[in-house]
Amino acid sequence: MSDEPVRGEESLIQEFLAPLAAGFPGAFGLQDDCAVIAPEPGDELVVKTDPIVAGVHFPLDTAPEDIAWRALAVNVSDLAAKGATPVAYLMALALPEAPQRAWMQRFANGLEQAQRAFGCHLIGGDTDRTPGPLTVSITAFGSAPRGMMVRRGAARPGDQLFVTGTLGDAALGLALLTEPGLKQTLGLSDGEAAASLARFLRPAPRLGLAPLLRAHASAAMDLSDGLAKDCGRMCKASGAGARIEIDALPLSAPMRKAVHEDPRWLERAATQGDDYEILAAVPAARAQAFAGAAASLDFGVTRIGEITAGAGVTIERADGTAMDLGKPGWDHFA
Amino acid sequence: MSDEPVRGEESLIQEFLAPLAAGFPGAFGLQDDCAVIAPEPGDELVVKTDPIVAGVHFPLDTAPEDIAWRALAVNVSDLAAKGATPVAYLMALALPEAPQRAWMQRFANGLEQAQRAFGCHLIGGDTDRTPGPLTVSITAFGSAPRGMMVRRGAARPGDQLFVTGTLGDAALGLALLTEPGLKQTLGLSDGEAAASLARFLRPAPRLGLAPLLRAHASAAMDLSDGLAKDCGRMCKASGAGARIEIDALPLSAPMRKAVHEDPRWLERAATQGDDYEILAAVPAARAQAFAGAAASLDFGVTRIGEITAGAGVTIERADGTAMDLGKPGWDHFA
Repeated sequence: MSDEPVRGEESLIQEFLAPLAAGFPGAFGLQDDCAVIAPEPGDELVVKTDPIVAGVHFPLDTAPEDIAWRALAVNVSDLAAKGATPVAYLMALALPEAPQRAWMQRFANGLEQAQRAFGCHLIGGDTDRTPGPLTVSITAFGSAPRGMMVRRGAARPGDQLFVTGTLGDAALGLALLTEPGLKQTLGLSDGEAAASLARFLRPAPRLGLAPLLRAHASAAMDLSDGLAKDCGRMCKASGAGARIEIDALPLSAPMRKAVHEDPRWLERAATQGDDYEILAAVPAARAQAFAGAAASLDFGVTRIGEITAGAGVTIERADGTAMDLGKPGWDHFA
Repeated sequence: MSDEPVRGEESLIQEFLAPLAAGFPGAFGLQDDCAVIAPEPGDELVVKTDPIVAGVHFPLDTAPEDIAWRALAVNVSDLAAKGATPVAYLMALALPEAPQRAWMQRFANGLEQAQRAFGCHLIGGDTDRTPGPLTVSITAFGSAPRGMMVRRGAARPGDQLFVTGTLGDAALGLALLTEPGLKQTLGLSDGEAAASLARFLRPAPRLGLAPLLRAHASAAMDLSDGLAKDCGRMCKASGAGARIEIDALPLSAPMRKAVHEDPRWLERAATQGDDYEILAAVPAARAQAFAGAAASLDFGVTRIGEITAGAGVTIERADGTAMDLGKPGWDHFA
């Protein structure tokens, strides 16, 4: 039974996807052509679309649960960084062939875990057959008090730069997947390797930070293409620069081991993608209150530098000299 | 210059796409990670996502202006059928390679024409490189008075069935593209062939019907997969059946010629996709008012049958016998 392909779009939608829409009246059980959504009075909707493509954004052999989780998490991560609370999402699923029932059930299970963790519901979408790779295109809807979305381009010189969690773990996890022997080279335990891999496979949107960002931050964004590049985007949009202290970057135990064995991993913590941590610029006068409030979150925040007058991102060593990171971060069309 | 590829995602966004966002404050000039949108007081948002894939939804050699138009039109068509007014859209663009500047400018021009025609703005999105075919994934936002979205599943026995415009033209246009000699076989003039092709390449969402649907219709949906199949969906969602009179289907002059030369074209008018007309079920007591009000629109509406008790769609010949259309319409996973 479970090796059989799903037969027909209607079966795919009604059997596997409609249960994910049960909690949202405006989804009409995925039986209509459109969904309806409205923010609470005084709120507005914060919207984002960020598709993921097999072989581009995740390895071809990624488990269906993890693909589904990632597809939703990368969008919800943006909502969190903007100070918004997830509400709902649309999903367009492009499949190279009719999926097996077992694959589809696991994919739906991953979505169910993710939407429960993030507090949102599937409300509509589309399924297509494609001659290309599996593509999951989610559009996520969050809510935020009107006019309170935290912007990317409103950082000001003197603002203190913070990041959530730890950096580089997802890059390490991906490297462990693709480079046999790396675990041994870096001297990582099974548990450390598994934790790094989980950071790559299951990005954890930092939703708990959203209200603190609204209360304290000048600017914020999530880190998907590497700290150096994404911070450069914040600086450019803000008409400012940034100084980051490389030794201040928060590192997990596995990343500290990796840096100890191969110092290039410190550079990678500043340049590799898929962190899905949040970079926030907080006025100096509010930095203590922000860090204090964030201390009660299970991921924490770390001060890594500050916004400066001028332009561009300088990453400094402990001795104050600037690192040359070459061309940092990912650009699909560079 | 124009044969050069676009260099970098930022150039792609800021040079070619940001001008399309200029009229919508919540788009933040495409310089932020998310957009914000809120319906007017008393309204709610009607949302839809329907991606189009090269080689699946349009021929590989389609002009960039027409690809862009189609990508937006197929989504806006759904909004119109639900009684909603287009407001804004997100676009995720997956490109097999960095596009040439000339191609990208033409694509942006097509989007500009479409969004001006439909009255909406680009407010955000994403660009990716893909190993698969060109894919344009638009999520469209419309507004409708709260609780007034016209449903698919609320048709009732006795409702009169109407369609806008004419049926089968897009299928004829696509056939003219792919079958050399068909124009001559069917005896079509250059103008008739061009008009049919335009119906395929530039679907025209029937936005003028939206207020009339809200005022009069029990149920409505747009026709993308063929009248017989889409009417079957309306019936199933409504727990009802339908009787359609094949001779009542509205046909353009080129389609009348095609049917005259080859009667199978009449069947195709009932089964082929890409019409992007609207199917509406209107209570008998309101049918005259609906048709009268629609008479002032430039595309018109035609009564083609009625909703019945029971289940399934029966398509009747003039003598009252039922046609057997086999397996009608498109299913990606059948």
